[in-house]
Amino acid sequence: MLSQERVDAILDEMSQIQLGQILITDPMAIYYLLGYLFDPGERFLGLLLRIDGHHALIVNRLFPIHENLGVNVVIYDDRDPILEMLCDYLDPRLRLGVDKNLPARFLLPMQERRIASSFMDSSFIIDTIRGIKREDEQELMKEASRVNDLAMEKFKKLIRSGISEREVAAKMLRIYQSLGASDFSFSPLVAFGANAADPHHVPDGTVVMPGDNVLLDVGCRKDMYCSDMTRTFFFEKVSSAHREIYEIVRRANERAIDGCKPGMLLKDVDALARDYITKKGYGDYFTHRLGHFIGLDVHEAGDVSASNDAVVKPGMIFSIEPGIYLPNEMGVRIEDLVLVTEQGCEVLNHYSKELEIITDLDE
Amino acid sequence: MLSQERVDAILDEMSQIQLGQILITDPMAIYYLLGYLFDPGERFLGLLLRIDGHHALIVNRLFPIHENLGVNVVIYDDRDPILEMLCDYLDPRLRLGVDKNLPARFLLPMQERRIASSFMDSSFIIDTIRGIKREDEQELMKEASRVNDLAMEKFKKLIRSGISEREVAAKMLRIYQSLGASDFSFSPLVAFGANAADPHHVPDGTVVMPGDNVLLDVGCRKDMYCSDMTRTFFFEKVSSAHREIYEIVRRANERAIDGCKPGMLLKDVDALARDYITKKGYGDYFTHRLGHFIGLDVHEAGDVSASNDAVVKPGMIFSIEPGIYLPNEMGVRIEDLVLVTEQGCEVLNHYSKELEIITDLDE
Repeated sequence: MLSQERVDAILDEMSQIQLGQILITDPMAIYYLLGYLFDPGERFLGLLLRIDGHHALIVNRLFPIHENLGVNVVIYDDRDPILEMLCDYLDPRLRLGVDKNLPARFLLPMQERRIASSFMDSSFIIDTIRGIKREDEQELMKEASRVNDLAMEKFKKLIRSGISEREVAAKMLRIYQSLGASDFSFSPLVAFGANAADPHHVPDGTVVMPGDNVLLDVGCRKDMYCSDMTRTFFFEKVSSAHREIYEIVRRANERAIDGCKPGMLLKDVDALARDYITKKGYGDYFTHRLGHFIGLDVHEAGDVSASNDAVVKPGMIFSIEPGIYLPNEMGVRIEDLVLVTEQGCEVLNHYSKELEIITDLDE
Repeated sequence: MLSQERVDAILDEMSQIQLGQILITDPMAIYYLLGYLFDPGERFLGLLLRIDGHHALIVNRLFPIHENLGVNVVIYDDRDPILEMLCDYLDPRLRLGVDKNLPARFLLPMQERRIASSFMDSSFIIDTIRGIKREDEQELMKEASRVNDLAMEKFKKLIRSGISEREVAAKMLRIYQSLGASDFSFSPLVAFGANAADPHHVPDGTVVMPGDNVLLDVGCRKDMYCSDMTRTFFFEKVSSAHREIYEIVRRANERAIDGCKPGMLLKDVDALARDYITKKGYGDYFTHRLGHFIGLDVHEAGDVSASNDAVVKPGMIFSIEPGIYLPNEMGVRIEDLVLVTEQGCEVLNHYSKELEIITDLDE
């Protein structure tokens, strides 16, 4: 059912920039507004919002709708001329806002057919609204992270002599589902030893060895909302050099969390962790931004990085995930999700960050 | 390593339509040309091919390349002005071909900055070339389907009293991986009884009941290439009405396979199955196209549908997947992959299409 509150917030923003019509095509953005998830594949799906209130949802007949969505639904067939149909609902004399991810195969013909006077990327409007989580969304985010805490405990127990990254990863989905999640929020990262030095390593046949760091970057989706957490364990033993690196990353994570509060800039949150790692001599080995926004999508618009001058506001939820990566040797990342509150921030996941050595003798 | 043969085929097509430069951004299309897979996420990745041979690969430094790709590699940083950099490698006086899925967040700024005189969707060039599989690709496709045959046998054995769709689906990845596949080629469809009437049903907690049809639409990725097969079993028993529907779908599948040969039109392959189902009175219940092309992507450009006037050519690989869906009652689909040969076509997967009743007593 179309959320009048959320649509009104969008229409307000549209008024402020004199934008009369926007065409939302991202299925998750449409879910945010309608509470109804489409999986249109390659087919066109669009929710047209107009300042004058003549909204319309354009959807292929392959995706039958079994409930009242509170919006004019326009059904088309694979043989229908979609551009012509769109023209019946748009005002071609006005500018049209489109999604940042609208593919060229739709945008170029729209431009050629001149269904609007010009086109602009208007995703920032809905992205900005989605960036502030309302109370019901905050509760769902907490619940997804609660499941992630329970899952992490079970994932840790999978780490035993002889097991490979791929075997660990393959067991995770069922664990999540047994805890009530519907799916991964992203394909899990499992990296042993030097593999963890590559932040984009894909789980492979590497078997865990004594002294390895064990990096688990994992998250689930529950009631549509995403969790995301990283913990780095060690297997059987840890060298003092690696322990030192672990503690630097942990302190960087805690400094950012302790210092994060409304009114500061997102880039200054990044600096809280980065400056500490740099001071300790590992600045060149922390090769990515500190965090990303998260909600219905695991990566939402907005990030915690040196280039983001936006202001931290209550209701924002993002990750704090500093890391140190030593090529061909090891990698440590510790990631939490935080919800910005009136005074500071609240951590959504609660799995311990104490350095933990997993041994085959456990249990 | 840049495949000179594949690049030359693209440059030939570009010459024919007087297109001097194309920017390929789809990671799988880039893999097709380079044999190297990037996962750039939201970041820009582009392979620029120019008629004059001054090709360039533009890639973020987050994705380090550990081998010689045989092309000029341009590394950028998150803070670099990508559009300005692109201008150093493009000719702004010429038209630029872009990928059908290039997102508006890249295309609109490119248009505003006038990095080219105009923009066109040029994906059909590489898609047409990818649509004809060379011998090495044919072998990889056969291997992926061989694994799918073995997996289907194991999936069937998961069907037992009390098991839910979701539980079956959750066990599939490990089975595929134990057989040497790296991943799913798509999220598996498991649908019992009336759930199978929705071709886009997502596996849920529904438990299999005697008399249910059990629809498994599954595929894996092995050495990057995809398989895709659907079989519809019955659990414990089958009504004569459902048996009749099964046999109609099976005959439709076989008619299309037996009749498919080079020189005919793809829409006529669709008609071979569709006309038979219509003649039997179920035309309104076969609600989708007969098939889709497949290769590195599970859905590649090109389909077997009433609206496709393209000619069937040797080397094409596509699915033949007729179905009959009775709302709130049941659904049957039988899907094979075929490789078009000089004389007709060869089926890549070999799992039996005889009606099979699964019972708890098996083994």
